[in-house]
Amino acid sequence: MTIANPQSRNHAPSQRAPFRQVAIYGKPGAPLAEPMAAIAQAVQSCGLTALFEAATLREAGLAGYTGHSHEAIGEQADVAIVLGGDGTMLGVARELASYNIPLIGINHGRLGFITDIAVDHITQALVPMLRGEYETDQRAMLDAQVRRADTTVLHTRALNDVVVARGVTGGMIEFTIRVDNITLYNQRADGVILATPTGSTAYALSAHGPIVHPSVGGLVLVPVAPHSLTQRPIVLPNHLTVDIEITDVRDGRAHFDMQTMSNLSPGDSVRVNVSKDVVTMLHPKGYNYYATLRQKLHWSVMPTEPHNRA
Amino acid sequence: MTIANPQSRNHAPSQRAPFRQVAIYGKPGAPLAEPMAAIAQAVQSCGLTALFEAATLREAGLAGYTGHSHEAIGEQADVAIVLGGDGTMLGVARELASYNIPLIGINHGRLGFITDIAVDHITQALVPMLRGEYETDQRAMLDAQVRRADTTVLHTRALNDVVVARGVTGGMIEFTIRVDNITLYNQRADGVILATPTGSTAYALSAHGPIVHPSVGGLVLVPVAPHSLTQRPIVLPNHLTVDIEITDVRDGRAHFDMQTMSNLSPGDSVRVNVSKDVVTMLHPKGYNYYATLRQKLHWSVMPTEPHNRA
Amino acid sequence: MTIANPQSRNHAPSQRAPFRQVAIYGKPGAPLAEPMAAIAQAVQSCGLTALFEAATLREAGLAGYTGHSHEAIGEQADVAIVLGGDGTMLGVARELASYNIPLIGINHGRLGFITDIAVDHITQALVPMLRGEYETDQRAMLDAQVRRADTTVLHTRALNDVVVARGVTGGMIEFTIRVDNITLYNQRADGVILATPTGSTAYALSAHGPIVHPSVGGLVLVPVAPHSLTQRPIVLPNHLTVDIEITDVRDGRAHFDMQTMSNLSPGDSVRVNVSKDVVTMLHPKGYNYYATLRQKLHWSVMPTEPHNRA
Amino acid sequence: MTIANPQSRNHAPSQRAPFRQVAIYGKPGAPLAEPMAAIAQAVQSCGLTALFEAATLREAGLAGYTGHSHEAIGEQADVAIVLGGDGTMLGVARELASYNIPLIGINHGRLGFITDIAVDHITQALVPMLRGEYETDQRAMLDAQVRRADTTVLHTRALNDVVVARGVTGGMIEFTIRVDNITLYNQRADGVILATPTGSTAYALSAHGPIVHPSVGGLVLVPVAPHSLTQRPIVLPNHLTVDIEITDVRDGRAHFDMQTMSNLSPGDSVRVNVSKDVVTMLHPKGYNYYATLRQKLHWSVMPTEPHNRA
Repeated sequence: MTIANPQSRNHAPSQRAPFRQVAIYGKPGAPLAEPMAAIAQAVQSCGLTALFEAATLREAGLAGYTGHSHEAIGEQADVAIVLGGDGTMLGVARELASYNIPLIGINHGRLGFITDIAVDHITQALVPMLRGEYETDQRAMLDAQVRRADTTVLHTRALNDVVVARGVTGGMIEFTIRVDNITLYNQRADGVILATPTGSTAYALSAHGPIVHPSVGGLVLVPVAPHSLTQRPIVLPNHLTVDIEITDVRDGRAHFDMQTMSNLSPGDSVRVNVSKDVVTMLHPKGYNYYATLRQKLHWSVMPTEPHNRA
Repeated sequence: MTIANPQSRNHAPSQRAPFRQVAIYGKPGAPLAEPMAAIAQAVQSCGLTALFEAATLREAGLAGYTGHSHEAIGEQADVAIVLGGDGTMLGVARELASYNIPLIGINHGRLGFITDIAVDHITQALVPMLRGEYETDQRAMLDAQVRRADTTVLHTRALNDVVVARGVTGGMIEFTIRVDNITLYNQRADGVILATPTGSTAYALSAHGPIVHPSVGGLVLVPVAPHSLTQRPIVLPNHLTVDIEITDVRDGRAHFDMQTMSNLSPGDSVRVNVSKDVVTMLHPKGYNYYATLRQKLHWSVMPTEPHNRA
Repeated sequence: MTIANPQSRNHAPSQRAPFRQVAIYGKPGAPLAEPMAAIAQAVQSCGLTALFEAATLREAGLAGYTGHSHEAIGEQADVAIVLGGDGTMLGVARELASYNIPLIGINHGRLGFITDIAVDHITQALVPMLRGEYETDQRAMLDAQVRRADTTVLHTRALNDVVVARGVTGGMIEFTIRVDNITLYNQRADGVILATPTGSTAYALSAHGPIVHPSVGGLVLVPVAPHSLTQRPIVLPNHLTVDIEITDVRDGRAHFDMQTMSNLSPGDSVRVNVSKDVVTMLHPKGYNYYATLRQKLHWSVMPTEPHNRA
Repeated sequence: MTIANPQSRNHAPSQRAPFRQVAIYGKPGAPLAEPMAAIAQAVQSCGLTALFEAATLREAGLAGYTGHSHEAIGEQADVAIVLGGDGTMLGVARELASYNIPLIGINHGRLGFITDIAVDHITQALVPMLRGEYETDQRAMLDAQVRRADTTVLHTRALNDVVVARGVTGGMIEFTIRVDNITLYNQRADGVILATPTGSTAYALSAHGPIVHPSVGGLVLVPVAPHSLTQRPIVLPNHLTVDIEITDVRDGRAHFDMQTMSNLSPGDSVRVNVSKDVVTMLHPKGYNYYATLRQKLHWSVMPTEPHNRA
């Protein structure tokens, strides 16, 4: 699943000095002091400069550093270290999407599917990576617009998924899916998920969608609790424009990585394309996507096996 | 889903004279006389030459034609018309795979998912297509080898799927899946299906696999009745080598499009790559993959809708 | 699936005069004039008395009748005819639950799974039934309480299902299921459905629950989009007390037949028992539950069959 | 799930002397010497008589005992201890079905879902149970006949399931299901499973069937990889006669607990009723069916939880 090194303008990777400025992000509200000190120490021990995100620095309470805005980080950083859960990683990925800065995730949350370094391995894992030993993993991202009466009322991104679901009203919503203006189907359901390969192991998996390997050029479309018994998830090619239009009298809601939300009225639609921006994640050498599936999701592990054997 | 015109050496398509020699295949054992006469008539009315496959001609009982071998057809034909069910189409596709001859399917079977022209529309549908008005649809094919003690004991192709399942013994088989020599998982199950996008709407769909659009560069791996509750189908990129190895003491069987079969002993494996050959299908103008899903599989049609409304 | 004749005090059925007073209900807001006149005519032609529900009579606009309250109907009626969709039937069943009045459903809605008489067969279907030729079908009902700090804040019934789902907040809720005070599981999910056999073909079916035959003494518990890959629906015996407790910081909502709703705060729970009251439905002679599954849900109908063949 | 004490003629349970003669069965081919000695020791320490099944005694190699036939055990034993996997337990349950002897299962196999005592807890678990402290758990059993041209060619039992599946031919089989002579459906599929509640957590679960609690009076019918997208499992009441008839030209096979097998020709059918005999299982005090589901199947355990936490 290694595809390429990051190709951005300002951090042409070389084996001798792959990174110079290292952004550091933490999960808001988490106890950050100790792991942040370990991260800062690892960055310094490699002779690199730590650029703390401003809110992270306040929570970490580390002296001797200056906090930076997302924009400043976007302009200067060569790599970003993110401490938190998958939600934190999604948030930073969305903030930095247009800057093409590779991300290293350290798991301080529950599942840690995309933040794959354990918090108690910070030093062992980070130092070799900051010196240039890593696997590169590029992930497709979604570009999404909420459309109302031919105008775009929200324009945002999602690394996992775009979800259209019922709003404050109970019951099913009814929607129409179009790809490149061809109708796929009308459906009544609790909602519908359009997920990237990255998002295929998140909410879409709960809704009975397939796992899609990150290097497959496809998106997965999965309704949640559809009214039709013949519904099945479909994997669509990633060069299409997908429109999800609310068609019944109820309201709905659009969620983007479950972080940004928009109310939808009947007639509103959400238009989704695969973004030109990709998210580059860096993993320790030896990273194995399938092993992560087995270890984190217990994928395919049989009842007779210890589930930690994977 | 139109990708390109066929790029083979001997039938450079032009708007004026796309085809000259038209192969004709029929389903063995089916009553072919009437529809074959209609096909021959359509071919002649376009000023083209009909090359009947030898067995088809015998069953059709048409006078004034000579029967041809697969090889002769492969060398000479610019396009092949296949009358039958999806199984007939799969068989012809496998026979002609290396010749890069586009196929037109006329449904004389039960489902007719890939043979999408109705038998009572032969003339209306065929004449414009033979004159060059068609949609082109390229499908990935699998190249498969049965491996025993480091030798290849069978080498074949599949347009739909490679299936490894239990043989004469009842009960589950146990197998290991590897991609590019990395272990995906061990599993006990009734069997496992590796399907192309074309095969994703066949047996893999019965086994709870997703639909994969033909222009997605992926294969779907779906166990049948797996012992593990955490099993989920995965869509793999199509540049990988997939090995399916029988690991327990029972025997197994490998099926290729459910047409070619091989017994497997413990330790045997099936190695699968995406073939360099593609199958090109031609459809009438206006062909709509999603409409076919709705009409043939009733995909996403709601209980409250007439199922023929799709 | 015929179990017994209704055993209530005031309408001991006899072959000669099974019913005398016939309640009539219609779907609020639907155009009722014409079918209501047909129903009234059928009732009169059998020499029986029509008791129109008050709101129904206003919408039907029929002269010469008096409207009655639910209570008056409950005291006097021997049978109730319900014109509408399944939702109308659910509502009347809940209103009349304690009176043990059998229900005849006429479909004026979309699916009509439990309202199984077509609106254009009113006379043919009703007259024999009102004369005593019918199949009796008894359905279990749920008795449900919303519990907050050891008090019951809502006490209601459900014929289809009790659903606990997320409220205005997005994302999953977390809940604990207990039966007779034994913990079944904790789960994060969009929600959870506890359905009667009647409800097993409604929302629970969309959420991948099994069909449960109405004469099975069981309830089906199905999470919606559960976080756990090892989740599976369970059919529980119907003598248990089931508690569904919201355990995380988000709010939730309880829905009863999707008609009554209650907000839930963390710590609140919904307690469900099978009610002592049953709902008796009457069907035309020859009613076939399995045929209804095939005709209304297209259950098990194969792609190659016409879906109206069932 | 405790229903009643065993009601058989010769072992009227009393609190002082519930059992006198204890049958002992072991898994054929397993290393039995050590655990069998522990079982014999536990039986003797309670002052009871050990009746070793003959083949078990040979494999165990214990001196000072006489081996007994199934019939002798059936006539004399008050309880049977079974050491092995679930398959061993199924086999003994089928052998002793008509004698109404309660069974205690000790797990020496892989999963041990119904053999719920760990092999290294033999003494601690057995002694209190043999003294009368146990939970009683009664399980429904199937009575099955293979019917050919109006005669019964095989009559057998199954505690888990009756499975009709393809035989030596590949591809799907086609069958018709009837209950009490009413057609449920025709279906093409790999096969179909009719399972008791006990069998609902075995093969039927792999085929996407629901879990059915042992005290629900129902059977679950689940096709394996059905051709129809609208197929769903159904839970049927346990007073019905279910017929599964092979209808296409291929052969099939009937499996009973995957232990007894019969070839089926087109036109043959398998007739299944719930048996008048029940299987009584005894569990240590405090046995919890739901905890077993979580521990053995990891049912509902979330990815973020350790899977051994259940």
